Amino acid sequence: MPATPPPGKTVPGDLEIARQAVMKPISDIAAAAGVNDEAVEFYGRYKAKIDPAKLMTPARSPGKVVLVSAMSPTPAGEGKSTLTVGLADSLSRAGHKVMIALREPSLGPVLGMKGGATGGGYSQVLPMDEINLHFTGDFHAITSANNALMALVDNHIFQGNELGIDPRRLTFKRVLDMNDRSLREVVIGLGGPAQGVPRQDGFDITVASEIMAVFCLAADLADLRERLGRITFGYTYDRSPVTVADLGVQGALTLLLKEALKPNLVQTIAGTPALVHGGPFANIAHGCNSLIATQTARRLADIVVTEAGFGADLGAEKFMDIKSRVADVAPSAVVLVATVRALKMHGGVAKDNLTAPNVEALAAGVVNLQRHIRNVRKFGIEPVVAINKFGTDTPEELDWLSDWCTAEGVPSAVADVWGRGGGGDGGDELAAKVAEAIDAPHGFKPLYPLEMPVADKIRTIVQEIYGADGVDFSVPALRRLAEIEKNGWSGLPVCMAKTQYSFTDDATRLGAPTGFTVHVRDLIPKTGAGFIVALTGAVMTMPGLPKVPAALRMDVDGAGNPVGLS
Amino acid sequence: MPATPPPGKTVPGDLEIARQAVMKPISDIAAAAGVNDEAVEFYGRYKAKIDPAKLMTPARSPGKVVLVSAMSPTPAGEGKSTLTVGLADSLSRAGHKVMIALREPSLGPVLGMKGGATGGGYSQVLPMDEINLHFTGDFHAITSANNALMALVDNHIFQGNELGIDPRRLTFKRVLDMNDRSLREVVIGLGGPAQGVPRQDGFDITVASEIMAVFCLAADLADLRERLGRITFGYTYDRSPVTVADLGVQGALTLLLKEALKPNLVQTIAGTPALVHGGPFANIAHGCNSLIATQTARRLADIVVTEAGFGADLGAEKFMDIKSRVADVAPSAVVLVATVRALKMHGGVAKDNLTAPNVEALAAGVVNLQRHIRNVRKFGIEPVVAINKFGTDTPEELDWLSDWCTAEGVPSAVADVWGRGGGGDGGDELAAKVAEAIDAPHGFKPLYPLEMPVADKIRTIVQEIYGADGVDFSVPALRRLAEIEKNGWSGLPVCMAKTQYSFTDDATRLGAPTGFTVHVRDLIPKTGAGFIVALTGAVMTMPGLPKVPAALRMDVDGAGNPVGLS
Repeated sequence: MPATPPPGKTVPGDLEIARQAVMKPISDIAAAAGVNDEAVEFYGRYKAKIDPAKLMTPARSPGKVVLVSAMSPTPAGEGKSTLTVGLADSLSRAGHKVMIALREPSLGPVLGMKGGATGGGYSQVLPMDEINLHFTGDFHAITSANNALMALVDNHIFQGNELGIDPRRLTFKRVLDMNDRSLREVVIGLGGPAQGVPRQDGFDITVASEIMAVFCLAADLADLRERLGRITFGYTYDRSPVTVADLGVQGALTLLLKEALKPNLVQTIAGTPALVHGGPFANIAHGCNSLIATQTARRLADIVVTEAGFGADLGAEKFMDIKSRVADVAPSAVVLVATVRALKMHGGVAKDNLTAPNVEALAAGVVNLQRHIRNVRKFGIEPVVAINKFGTDTPEELDWLSDWCTAEGVPSAVADVWGRGGGGDGGDELAAKVAEAIDAPHGFKPLYPLEMPVADKIRTIVQEIYGADGVDFSVPALRRLAEIEKNGWSGLPVCMAKTQYSFTDDATRLGAPTGFTVHVRDLIPKTGAGFIVALTGAVMTMPGLPKVPAALRMDVDGAGNPVGLS
Repeated sequence: MPATPPPGKTVPGDLEIARQAVMKPISDIAAAAGVNDEAVEFYGRYKAKIDPAKLMTPARSPGKVVLVSAMSPTPAGEGKSTLTVGLADSLSRAGHKVMIALREPSLGPVLGMKGGATGGGYSQVLPMDEINLHFTGDFHAITSANNALMALVDNHIFQGNELGIDPRRLTFKRVLDMNDRSLREVVIGLGGPAQGVPRQDGFDITVASEIMAVFCLAADLADLRERLGRITFGYTYDRSPVTVADLGVQGALTLLLKEALKPNLVQTIAGTPALVHGGPFANIAHGCNSLIATQTARRLADIVVTEAGFGADLGAEKFMDIKSRVADVAPSAVVLVATVRALKMHGGVAKDNLTAPNVEALAAGVVNLQRHIRNVRKFGIEPVVAINKFGTDTPEELDWLSDWCTAEGVPSAVADVWGRGGGGDGGDELAAKVAEAIDAPHGFKPLYPLEMPVADKIRTIVQEIYGADGVDFSVPALRRLAEIEKNGWSGLPVCMAKTQYSFTDDATRLGAPTGFTVHVRDLIPKTGAGFIVALTGAVMTMPGLPKVPAALRMDVDGAGNPVGLS
């Protein structure tokens, strides 16, 4: 989110704005959204779960999906969640019946670097403190289900190992919703014969759990149970895959997840209803909120504004090639968030110099946005560029970028939803462009057919979306390709795990590089989620804490109010 | 809880009874209990949190506390929680204004052996499935706070270790609310310089966390913050204690716990209000629900029925010597739950033969109950014996036990709250006896003064309560006693970690053994909770799963209802 307020105006901190906002009782938000009382379960005054099985909505065509994606992100921050919230508020202000579908924040990063992840400035979902902390407990339920599975697996091995599971070939890890570097690589089961079977292991952060991905792709409770049963957690001594159904615990895991699977209703500062539900990683998973939340929102609203993690090369591609194949949720419009600052960084400016006006760097960096625009068009959809305004942007820079979009033939608008709020007039022009785009003719198609061999699917993404010359598979990856073929998993789509900062697999190569090869070092079949993860470069599935973690400034004041979230 | 229904009557399974029970909306329960609307936060239809800071109650003397404790437990099960719920229902039926204060069940054992822990038969708290699974997320919040602390500690060491923490002398562990044997002894921080600092470690179950004990002894949010700050998590290279306040993260931990600290309101099958909140281990901690729940219940009701873990040698002693010193919550009556089956086991009968009538074994085993009666009297309180009736008890056995109680001069009553329910007439006689005991004169006093040296406190408990000849300290324990003295912790009360099955430190010695010595192998100062744990024998702080875990029969049916909880 923006680091400086617009000139001549002081925007208070996020927590301060959130605290001053007057929330409506969530019962009012639910009623206004058309949710019948039977389907609402309150969690405190300002949060509720909606039970899709009890939701009664009139027969109508489902709401249109607006997918908010972005150029390649930079450490400067582009404010994608802020833009998503602000755009929905602006569409609502223009008279549309709108609902937001967003991911839940992960607690680990909140305690680490971020201090919060619910939008910013005057475009936030509320209550920001509760959403950023435990919310309604969904991630805790997923952590429990994940760790129950692994306790049951290790117990099975300890109690005689009837299934013949090879402890050296377990592919599933325990998880914590915590940034905990020390748990990346561990040895467990020490202490002698009464304490388990020793083996090498590691912990991931909860959002990296396949159970999170399964949770977010399940159509309903029965489908969740099926998908959980299909998860491959390891291999036997004779190298056959072992699934959760082989162990017979898909029922228990479903039971642990049944309440969590109901989407969470909250509100924006402007009172727009938002379903905030699920939150898989955008590298080793598909990076968007639960399918159930998206579909529930579509039953209630005409326009559903949703977001996919990282840049459009990752988030949007996965939304199109993974999520939109599981259910008919293809977007009617795709918004690409771009900022002057980030484009200057792609044009070669160092992070510390981004506030200095520099149209030349902007012109050099815009190739990054250009490739993302080209990519979205490959799915049969014309994007809208949202120029997310920061206080340090000059009129010259903003004009240059708008003019460039016009020349490129892509609709665009400058939005100031952080400083003025989508509920104010900060996103009116953007909302108008997006509404036009929704109604424009478009013909969605995924990038590749499922029957294509896995290696070719990867090659297609790498060449068509990243702009690479080709792909290079490591020896282990080639071996894994053969295994995938043998186990009958070739028909699954691919989920690329690549750095979000570059089209290449090298985070330092900004802009729109050409003449490169992407290196796939390993593949992980996620048979419950239903995709094959391709690992390129180093992929972090358990973050660490910084030297001065955000937790050090967090507290509760004398009146019981939160301190130090942002 | 009883394994067989009373003769001539079939009592359905717990989950079946719970499902058939018609719950009132929790708003009705709250209103009937005298809770003002501002203090209620709903969690679904049948659970709510009560905010003590917003609770408005008339000035009156606080409700009287009835502590339900027991003879030394056996694997046969004595039904203490069932009796607690049933007694409260019966007191309510007799016209008293009653509230229950109970511990929350831990998820790990639910998935392992127990399948549930919310009472049984017709004496249950509801909704049993939700209480047994994630409930309102309190234990997850405690798990998060505990693991945030340890991630921050290991990060501090990794980032330069300014405090000089010795990684070999950390006394705090990570926790999971899971029975996970393989995590008892682990090595973490492997993988090279970027992945942390390698060290030997282990995981406990969440209920064993000192944060759980702190949570359950805190008077309010400010006191919680103070206590968290006082937790000693390890020692420096020069052997000085390092606290959470030294690390500066007591604020963040408090923030993670602030919603969880509000007690949870639910109802019994008979509609009696119950606060189910917190649940520390009864061995390495004090084993009863949160102080805040007890005190909140006392603001609302004339009689608060609460329970302490294990037999009276552990649970009741700690209630008197730890919890009742933190706040003025000394019981006005103590109920000792006894069963014919368990007494026969203490009289030498094997577990498989308990259904055969055997007055001789009963007479031999009653010495166990006798010692517990004597012990309760040492605190200045006259106990009431609750004979919890099982279907296999014969009239001769029940009469013999009642007559024995009369001869012993202790009030007693046979209760059938499992089969007939406290809301029925199953506990009427017991309720009358308990009401009498509350009004009888009694003068509570703890067993030992705080200024007594720690070794003498332990010797006092061991001789006065367990009936031992004396105590024997290991060499490490003696070293620790000196450290405790040096660090100024001698004024803390003692928390004995001993097997619950025997007065001795050997689980196989039933009845009322004499001529034994208790061996203290180590001491753990819990400076946040405010007690010194004395470890005797093997104390399990991370349970394992059995060969056939309860999780294998758990599921969700086609209508989304839970299956396999009991």
